[in-house]
Amino acid sequence: MRAFRSQPELTTGRIEAFADGVFAIAITLLVLEIGVPHLADGESMLDALGGLWPSLFGYIFGFWVIGIYWVNHHYVFSLYRRSNHFFGLLNVVFLMTIAFLPFPTAVLAEYVADPAHRDGAIVFYLFALMLPAVTWSGTWFYASRVAHLVDDRLSDRFVTFLSWQYAGSAAAFALIVLVALVNSVAGLALGVILTLAYVMPPRAPEYREDSEA
Amino acid sequence: MRAFRSQPELTTGRIEAFADGVFAIAITLLVLEIGVPHLADGESMLDALGGLWPSLFGYIFGFWVIGIYWVNHHYVFSLYRRSNHFFGLLNVVFLMTIAFLPFPTAVLAEYVADPAHRDGAIVFYLFALMLPAVTWSGTWFYASRVAHLVDDRLSDRFVTFLSWQYAGSAAAFALIVLVALVNSVAGLALGVILTLAYVMPPRAPEYREDSEA
Amino acid sequence: MRAFRSQPELTTGRIEAFADGVFAIAITLLVLEIGVPHLADGESMLDALGGLWPSLFGYIFGFWVIGIYWVNHHYVFSLYRRSNHFFGLLNVVFLMTIAFLPFPTAVLAEYVADPAHRDGAIVFYLFALMLPAVTWSGTWFYASRVAHLVDDRLSDRFVTFLSWQYAGSAAAFALIVLVALVNSVAGLALGVILTLAYVMPPRAPEYREDSEA
Amino acid sequence: MRAFRSQPELTTGRIEAFADGVFAIAITLLVLEIGVPHLADGESMLDALGGLWPSLFGYIFGFWVIGIYWVNHHYVFSLYRRSNHFFGLLNVVFLMTIAFLPFPTAVLAEYVADPAHRDGAIVFYLFALMLPAVTWSGTWFYASRVAHLVDDRLSDRFVTFLSWQYAGSAAAFALIVLVALVNSVAGLALGVILTLAYVMPPRAPEYREDSEA
Repeated sequence: MRAFRSQPELTTGRIEAFADGVFAIAITLLVLEIGVPHLADGESMLDALGGLWPSLFGYIFGFWVIGIYWVNHHYVFSLYRRSNHFFGLLNVVFLMTIAFLPFPTAVLAEYVADPAHRDGAIVFYLFALMLPAVTWSGTWFYASRVAHLVDDRLSDRFVTFLSWQYAGSAAAFALIVLVALVNSVAGLALGVILTLAYVMPPRAPEYREDSEA
Repeated sequence: MRAFRSQPELTTGRIEAFADGVFAIAITLLVLEIGVPHLADGESMLDALGGLWPSLFGYIFGFWVIGIYWVNHHYVFSLYRRSNHFFGLLNVVFLMTIAFLPFPTAVLAEYVADPAHRDGAIVFYLFALMLPAVTWSGTWFYASRVAHLVDDRLSDRFVTFLSWQYAGSAAAFALIVLVALVNSVAGLALGVILTLAYVMPPRAPEYREDSEA
Repeated sequence: MRAFRSQPELTTGRIEAFADGVFAIAITLLVLEIGVPHLADGESMLDALGGLWPSLFGYIFGFWVIGIYWVNHHYVFSLYRRSNHFFGLLNVVFLMTIAFLPFPTAVLAEYVADPAHRDGAIVFYLFALMLPAVTWSGTWFYASRVAHLVDDRLSDRFVTFLSWQYAGSAAAFALIVLVALVNSVAGLALGVILTLAYVMPPRAPEYREDSEA
Repeated sequence: MRAFRSQPELTTGRIEAFADGVFAIAITLLVLEIGVPHLADGESMLDALGGLWPSLFGYIFGFWVIGIYWVNHHYVFSLYRRSNHFFGLLNVVFLMTIAFLPFPTAVLAEYVADPAHRDGAIVFYLFALMLPAVTWSGTWFYASRVAHLVDDRLSDRFVTFLSWQYAGSAAAFALIVLVALVNSVAGLALGVILTLAYVMPPRAPEYREDSEA
């Protein structure tokens, strides 16, 4: 029977496992960006570690951002039923924006306490935070509207809700980048608040009324 | 049937697999903190490698600490029956304290042989070792007392025993940090001894007498 | 029954999972090759990040290359039915050429904007891109012609097609290295185009007409 | 039924998956030890890369060593039937010696071309190669003789054969370290040859005659 032949296309399970690997590695690499402080003669360890607050903030917040994406990645993959070649590639592009995060985190840590370059570092950091929101939203758009990979028992209202939520999140980050161009610290604060809001659980899936039949 | 719909929340299996990834990466990154020695002209390789003892100690002990947490993570996950969104996030926070360990390990290795900064480096190291004990204990408290995610066939006595063990371990590390503020080497010795004690297997789960029915 | 004894040889599933780990790590390590820019006093962040274009190109293109190999690795493993010891070792050699890619990527990023060394850096980069194409093709040759590990229901025409495609891809990269020896930028352009062509999905497997019986 | 309760001890499958993660990470980290060459003005890229031969040898040979251990780790785990707490910890200790390998590889690459320190670097490298052979052999001894975790249908002759093979391999590396103390290059050559010999597949398991019953 044909049914016993291997599936040559990437299954969603396979993509999910690969993504989990990249999430786990990117989140763990963040620690490498914290440099061991070089203490001057009279300097205390406490002062030296305190001076690392930009690196420590970058580590904690970066861990939170990637952790949130990991949780939501599992959530959204519970809504997919099929996958295809381009969906797999779109996930590679999304992961490219996740695995990139240790770099802007290091740039932020290096320059956020430097008045001359703080603004540029923050704008770049927020721009980099916008990228996974954009590729996430694009992947969802492709899967739900173009290639119909999403579980077709989900209610249209629910799918539309998620589309707006994801596009809205990407748009909000774009707006935050614009805010940061005017006032970088205000932009960073908004970026942190928006990300912290994802502490709330995602909405439970809603199914079409006739989907039990 | 609803039963065939995907579980949108993180399963314990998924959290466990992600945690395993972070454990494996953090434990393997420890080796990157051992710098290749720069040998002076007449210096022998044996002397140079001997001079790396703080790095080698940091590698071996850090590997042991993370390995112990890995073993116990599997143990405690065998006691969970369910998971939820906040449980997943608490695990992210716990992993944040595990993946952080290569940094204090590097600080310890850099300064433990430097009389001027040894005390500060050891106190920071022990403080960092306390963090996973605290987040572990907090996750257990949430799972067992707040959200009731633990297998309800376990005896109350057993659940209470683990609660005391985990809270006690966190408290012991807090005490050890205080000891280290007075005498850093004594604090480090106590921290090592407490960790080595985890070579013993965790207590076998005990079930309620009526749980067979 | 013998059937219940463990399989002492590596299964294709085990090799695939290990390969996925190496793919995920190598792809995520690419970001470590992007160094945080050291800004001069009057220099703007935008200029500094713009000056990192070789590193950013290296990151994006390297991610794409490894991502493409990951997708195709899953595809080709759906065609295998068995594995053996040497097949496992050949996969180790293939992964050796994949995990190597962060190094030539770093060399390219360092020297592509340096007229004196651009040619050498590009030739080395393209040479390194050729290596996984060669080991991939060799592994396929071993599996399909020597050890007969491939699903024997696949049509001969299809297996031959893949053999030519994989050998052709390796030969094309060898040719591109030769082109780069004459004109490095033309070689790099050809290498990029050939890799981008893999955005197209691989050909669906074709089975022998009597394979349903 | 008790049978449905979770297994609180580490299963062999769980240990194997964790080990695979550490193998994959350690093998992929090897590339980070190859430093981008700093070219002098008139120096050609080919010369510079040629000068990296110790790093390239270290990468290729290190990849081979860890790859061989990965293949054999799967083989030996197909012979285990049970696991316990101490077996899990012994595997952590074994992985400690595997994840350590990038460091001696870096030391070798740094000093093998330096006549003043070549001998020391080679002895240290071979000593580090001996460590996983020793911990491997010790784990097998514990599993087969002390804790009886090995499939009890295997013939005694076969189990004894493996015990001798593993102990012999550890002893051979110890001997090679002694040889290297006298003549480092001869020691390195012997170490490479012994490792290359593992290209041969491990012996097929042999079962007791009455094990079918």
